[in-house]
Amino acid sequence: MIDLTLIGIGTGNPQHLTLQAIEALNAVDLILIPNKGAGKDDLAGLRREICDQVIRNPDVKITEFDLPTRDPKTTDYRQRVDDWHDAIARVWADKIATHLPQGGKVGFLVWGDPSLYDSTMRIADRLQRQQKINLSVVPGITSIQALTASHAIPVNEIGAPFTITTGRQLRDHGWPNSADTLVVMLDGECSFQSIEAADTHIWWSAYAGMPEEILISGSLNDVSQRIVDTRAAARADHGWIMDIYLLRR
Amino acid sequence: MIDLTLIGIGTGNPQHLTLQAIEALNAVDLILIPNKGAGKDDLAGLRREICDQVIRNPDVKITEFDLPTRDPKTTDYRQRVDDWHDAIARVWADKIATHLPQGGKVGFLVWGDPSLYDSTMRIADRLQRQQKINLSVVPGITSIQALTASHAIPVNEIGAPFTITTGRQLRDHGWPNSADTLVVMLDGECSFQSIEAADTHIWWSAYAGMPEEILISGSLNDVSQRIVDTRAAARADHGWIMDIYLLRR
Ligand SMILES: C[S@@+](CC[C@H](N)C(=O)[O-])C[C@H]1O[C@@H](n2cnc3c(N)ncnc32)[C@H](O)[C@@H]1O
Ligand SMILES: C[S@@+](CC[C@H](N)C(=O)[O-])C[C@H]1O[C@@H](n2cnc3c(N)ncnc32)[C@H](O)[C@@H]1O
Repeated sequence: MIDLTLIGIGTGNPQHLTLQAIEALNAVDLILIPNKGAGKDDLAGLRREICDQVIRNPDVKITEFDLPTRDPKTTDYRQRVDDWHDAIARVWADKIATHLPQGGKVGFLVWGDPSLYDSTMRIADRLQRQQKINLSVVPGITSIQALTASHAIPVNEIGAPFTITTGRQLRDHGWPNSADTLVVMLDGECSFQSIEAADTHIWWSAYAGMPEEILISGSLNDVSQRIVDTRAAARADHGWIMDIYLLRR
Repeated sequence: MIDLTLIGIGTGNPQHLTLQAIEALNAVDLILIPNKGAGKDDLAGLRREICDQVIRNPDVKITEFDLPTRDPKTTDYRQRVDDWHDAIARVWADKIATHLPQGGKVGFLVWGDPSLYDSTMRIADRLQRQQKINLSVVPGITSIQALTASHAIPVNEIGAPFTITTGRQLRDHGWPNSADTLVVMLDGECSFQSIEAADTHIWWSAYAGMPEEILISGSLNDVSQRIVDTRAAARADHGWIMDIYLLRR
């Protein structure tokens, strides 16, 4: 029997950790950390740093694993992601069988909150189909909140709805007519350029909550180009970028 | 000069507190806690309990204040809320002037995350119009995340948008056609009863993250009445209730 806990760690600021996350990290037998390989971002590094800082229980064992890569030969996007999740679930199962042959408690550190545009829960579901697993989730600060906290803005207008979406959705479907506030994530292409800028305000943040954080806000007309340029420069500088923004009209 | 920090404390589970929130609570001169009066909910009690548990700095002074009430004679909803926020801002200003005549650091504990359907930031804005204030925000776990963590579900489908809305919006405008996932908050009337139940799944939570937590999920057709009954009973039992749900079709 395996207890699997997905632990939200916030979005890069180790101070985002909750007491519940710290307790959960100290209560497991095994922590699995994906080793994304050097270069790119240093998310594996941050995970190790967090473990070093808050784990006081010497019985917690930390193991890295090589994250399988997506197969570019699979042309269908959904299929490619499905296959990839299957492959990751197999690696998890192997690691768990090796380190906890009698079962036990396994923890995963998940960027931000495990519920939000993250595949860890879907991989856990796959594992659950193969073996008896007790899944639990510890919430974490999301990048949406890191964005609104840094700009000190509310996410909603009084009593009004808002929609969370992705860069691709914004490009393909435009501004959904259900809400005057949009939060856009997973956008590698500054998709705010594809919408009507007049009367739209943007609050943008890269590396939200982290020491490298960059904040830009203003009327979309005025700051759109500045965000595009700043993003390109920061990405070249650091070798990776994560950004998020709120649009209000 | 006043430094004002709005500190998200999560949704009723003291373990939701982040390290950043604990640091912020220990770094202020004055904490203002609204005293909502006995009875109703015990949110003031939870705020005091959190302060007791994590504040180690003896120089932090904690003061309660009486929250003004909304004037039922003002018939326009928006005007009534505006007036109320003005009145609260006046009470804040008074308290701050009394306790910190030379200026200093003031902290507010905000339920969940300060960005989400909460008036504290709007009241701070009012204060900012009257005096020089440095506003900062510490994010907190939201009830959306407490909901999804307890049910161990993702909030979004892969790459898909989702909308956060209120009970009133759902009743008045129906299901917005921009997203197949809705999170509904601030709903005193089980407004899920107003929508087409066929092919809709609901994940409902009351007192999410708290010891009293109640979870119900299932096809909306099957569990709608059970939620209505459970909610009424729990509300009668505890004297207050807070609930939130996710709908997916
Ligand atoms: C795969 S999703 C994971 C989201 C995460 N689970 C959360 O709760 O924020 C990655 C996207 O989250 C956003 N993101 C995550 N961390 C961020 C950060 N520190 N600054 C800005 N955006 C961030 C970006 O939009 C990025 O494309
Ligand atoms: C005024 S809003 C404040 C939201 C808060 N700022 C947050 O981040 O969750 C109050 C609404 O939040 C939701 N809520 C807050 N705490 C909750 C809890 N512990 N359980 C269920 N719903 C909760 C309910 O929908 C409630 O009507």
